[in-house]
Amino acid sequence: MVYLTRKEHFNAAHMLYNHEWSEEKNIEVFGKCANKNYHGHNYNLFVTVKGNPNPETGFVMNVKTLSTIIQKEVCDLLDHKNLSIDVPELKDKMNSTENLAIFIWNKIVPHLADCEMHCVELWETENIYVRYYGENN
Amino acid sequence: MVYLTRKEHFNAAHMLYNHEWSEEKNIEVFGKCANKNYHGHNYNLFVTVKGNPNPETGFVMNVKTLSTIIQKEVCDLLDHKNLSIDVPELKDKMNSTENLAIFIWNKIVPHLADCEMHCVELWETENIYVRYYGENN
Amino acid sequence: MVYLTRKEHFNAAHMLYNHEWSEEKNIEVFGKCANKNYHGHNYNLFVTVKGNPNPETGFVMNVKTLSTIIQKEVCDLLDHKNLSIDVPELKDKMNSTENLAIFIWNKIVPHLADCEMHCVELWETENIYVRYYGENN
Amino acid sequence: MVYLTRKEHFNAAHMLYNHEWSEEKNIEVFGKCANKNYHGHNYNLFVTVKGNPNPETGFVMNVKTLSTIIQKEVCDLLDHKNLSIDVPELKDKMNSTENLAIFIWNKIVPHLADCEMHCVELWETENIYVRYYGENN
Amino acid sequence: MVYLTRKEHFNAAHMLYNHEWSEEKNIEVFGKCANKNYHGHNYNLFVTVKGNPNPETGFVMNVKTLSTIIQKEVCDLLDHKNLSIDVPELKDKMNSTENLAIFIWNKIVPHLADCEMHCVELWETENIYVRYYGENN
Amino acid sequence: MVYLTRKEHFNAAHMLYNHEWSEEKNIEVFGKCANKNYHGHNYNLFVTVKGNPNPETGFVMNVKTLSTIIQKEVCDLLDHKNLSIDVPELKDKMNSTENLAIFIWNKIVPHLADCEMHCVELWETENIYVRYYGENN
Repeated sequence: MVYLTRKEHFNAAHMLYNHEWSEEKNIEVFGKCANKNYHGHNYNLFVTVKGNPNPETGFVMNVKTLSTIIQKEVCDLLDHKNLSIDVPELKDKMNSTENLAIFIWNKIVPHLADCEMHCVELWETENIYVRYYGENN
Repeated sequence: MVYLTRKEHFNAAHMLYNHEWSEEKNIEVFGKCANKNYHGHNYNLFVTVKGNPNPETGFVMNVKTLSTIIQKEVCDLLDHKNLSIDVPELKDKMNSTENLAIFIWNKIVPHLADCEMHCVELWETENIYVRYYGENN
Repeated sequence: MVYLTRKEHFNAAHMLYNHEWSEEKNIEVFGKCANKNYHGHNYNLFVTVKGNPNPETGFVMNVKTLSTIIQKEVCDLLDHKNLSIDVPELKDKMNSTENLAIFIWNKIVPHLADCEMHCVELWETENIYVRYYGENN
Repeated sequence: MVYLTRKEHFNAAHMLYNHEWSEEKNIEVFGKCANKNYHGHNYNLFVTVKGNPNPETGFVMNVKTLSTIIQKEVCDLLDHKNLSIDVPELKDKMNSTENLAIFIWNKIVPHLADCEMHCVELWETENIYVRYYGENN
Repeated sequence: MVYLTRKEHFNAAHMLYNHEWSEEKNIEVFGKCANKNYHGHNYNLFVTVKGNPNPETGFVMNVKTLSTIIQKEVCDLLDHKNLSIDVPELKDKMNSTENLAIFIWNKIVPHLADCEMHCVELWETENIYVRYYGENN
Repeated sequence: MVYLTRKEHFNAAHMLYNHEWSEEKNIEVFGKCANKNYHGHNYNLFVTVKGNPNPETGFVMNVKTLSTIIQKEVCDLLDHKNLSIDVPELKDKMNSTENLAIFIWNKIVPHLADCEMHCVELWETENIYVRYYGENN
């Protein structure tokens, strides 16, 4: 069993705002992230799959195929977008890095064959990242 | 003469759109950056000053003072903001990384004493940065 | 279950010296780290917590709260300090990166609510780091 | 139980080519990596061991000893080499990053004492890495 | 005058060997780099151009155009290649990082319009890089 | 003319304290850096030389020779040392990063042959660095 990771990135705008709360509570909880005119990030995304290396190729999975899947299923959807306006599936969600990682996991899983999804690691800034392993607690 | 550099960062949303052009020309020139709903970046900012180290401190400038100036004059103004909406001085500008670097230079220069401004280096992504040295060509 | 990580850093001086050993044995085992006048490091610290994202915020934990806890409980105690002199709880310890990671774990755990501590990752240099997960072997 | 990681690096040339396949199939699967004249990489290698810190030293293992083992058993063998020609044990292998990680694991394990091998993490480029934990699936 | 930099990368194999010298002298001067079976690197390339931002776009140059020029003129030629075999213009050269930087400068310059070439910065490893500014000493 | 840079690193303890000042003034100016028990840093050092590539080697200078000079003249002197106690030439100096860069410049210059010293770049933390080019203002 070997774990293979591919890094991709995308840039996007978002805001964190719970519309069921007052303006005051939003600012108290989300601080500057509650700016209704949006702010943005360069997201760095690491997707990890696991499996046994194929004896004919030495590959858990062709990393170019993995890159293409991430590009098509995630980056084409999110890159240079406003997550809160341009992406229909994210419109009614709290687009925290946590929820975005789960969203990305679900986008990629159906496209894997011959190996298993292991982890989505998503960096929001150089100092903050989340990991999701598909675990239901 | 020694050159001292301090790194700070801010996150912001922007778009690149010339309102005197057609939609088609904007998309042709700015591509995904012309998204009218905005996208965003984690900007990394390196500000360099130069001077002779003070014999009593060994400092060209106290780096904490430099950090405070950048925070107050630049980051408080731009961080978690939409550059095209929230920052009055940037509203009618093409907010390219180039123009943003010049804007930052002009914000910091008036606050330096006893040493000279040398360079503003602004990273838009891990793969793109600009430098401005106050030169008029 | 999502894992959220926050990076902080601190600078400190320390030495590695076992006072029950001879000078020779200390130099044999700890090499340059046994310098009795101390040497120092820029420590990079990654603290990871885990939990289910709160449906109202999308957060496992507010990352600003996590940052504040690390700052108050760890960085205020260790930053710009001599670990072997200035920090009472570390005075009689072998302040290896391993033991420092366990120390940091114990400092943070009592301050978490609604999510669990998962990992302390501590980088001593760009080439050496340790991880502690609270495991007792 | 604490996990200790040491980073080393080596540069090497290789190619990915399955000699039981046609030229066409090699190019289809391995793309530019099938270049028969070889290409190369700067490999970054992170080796992780685990154990309880020794009460006399605070160390899971002396990190200098770990560094020496990696240098002797791995870097001396692979650095500035052509993996497909210069390293007898790799001559008949598909030298994917996956297989190289397993190879490195097997080279280091026999030289550890008093602590256990935990992980080999091998970066082929800034965007691709694999991890091997000694697991047999 | 603003300076705009774009990062690209390529992987390649090479060797350093002066065929007018004895084997002994080659090993004495080039050490492990004289391996006749080649070794390789992940090269990181930063290309900097300079000019006045265009008032209509805010750009010194469209960074996508710059990226395309580097890809076509440099990366397509060198990526996943053996510099000493696959690239006709490099066959009789000493392919040091210094000479490679000059080679890259000359490949890009003819394709720039409306702005000037300023610098080629080429990283051979994380610890070694060269810069060329087109200066003739 | 090509510029060649080599990165090395060293760890050291220091303090910033002007003994002609009161305790109060030291704390006002140097803040946490005035801790009399010392604190420490992982210093990253980039040394740049310039010259014409030698036609027989393609080298401005053999980078291994440059590395050896930096190791012997700088790292052996400063690594794992307390700059304020262990290094005689630094005892009566304000050991700011600025002055340390000038000190390192002067240590290396006498050992260069066939090429010129260009720059010492010294990183104190990930966010602060200085450059010295031998300029007298």
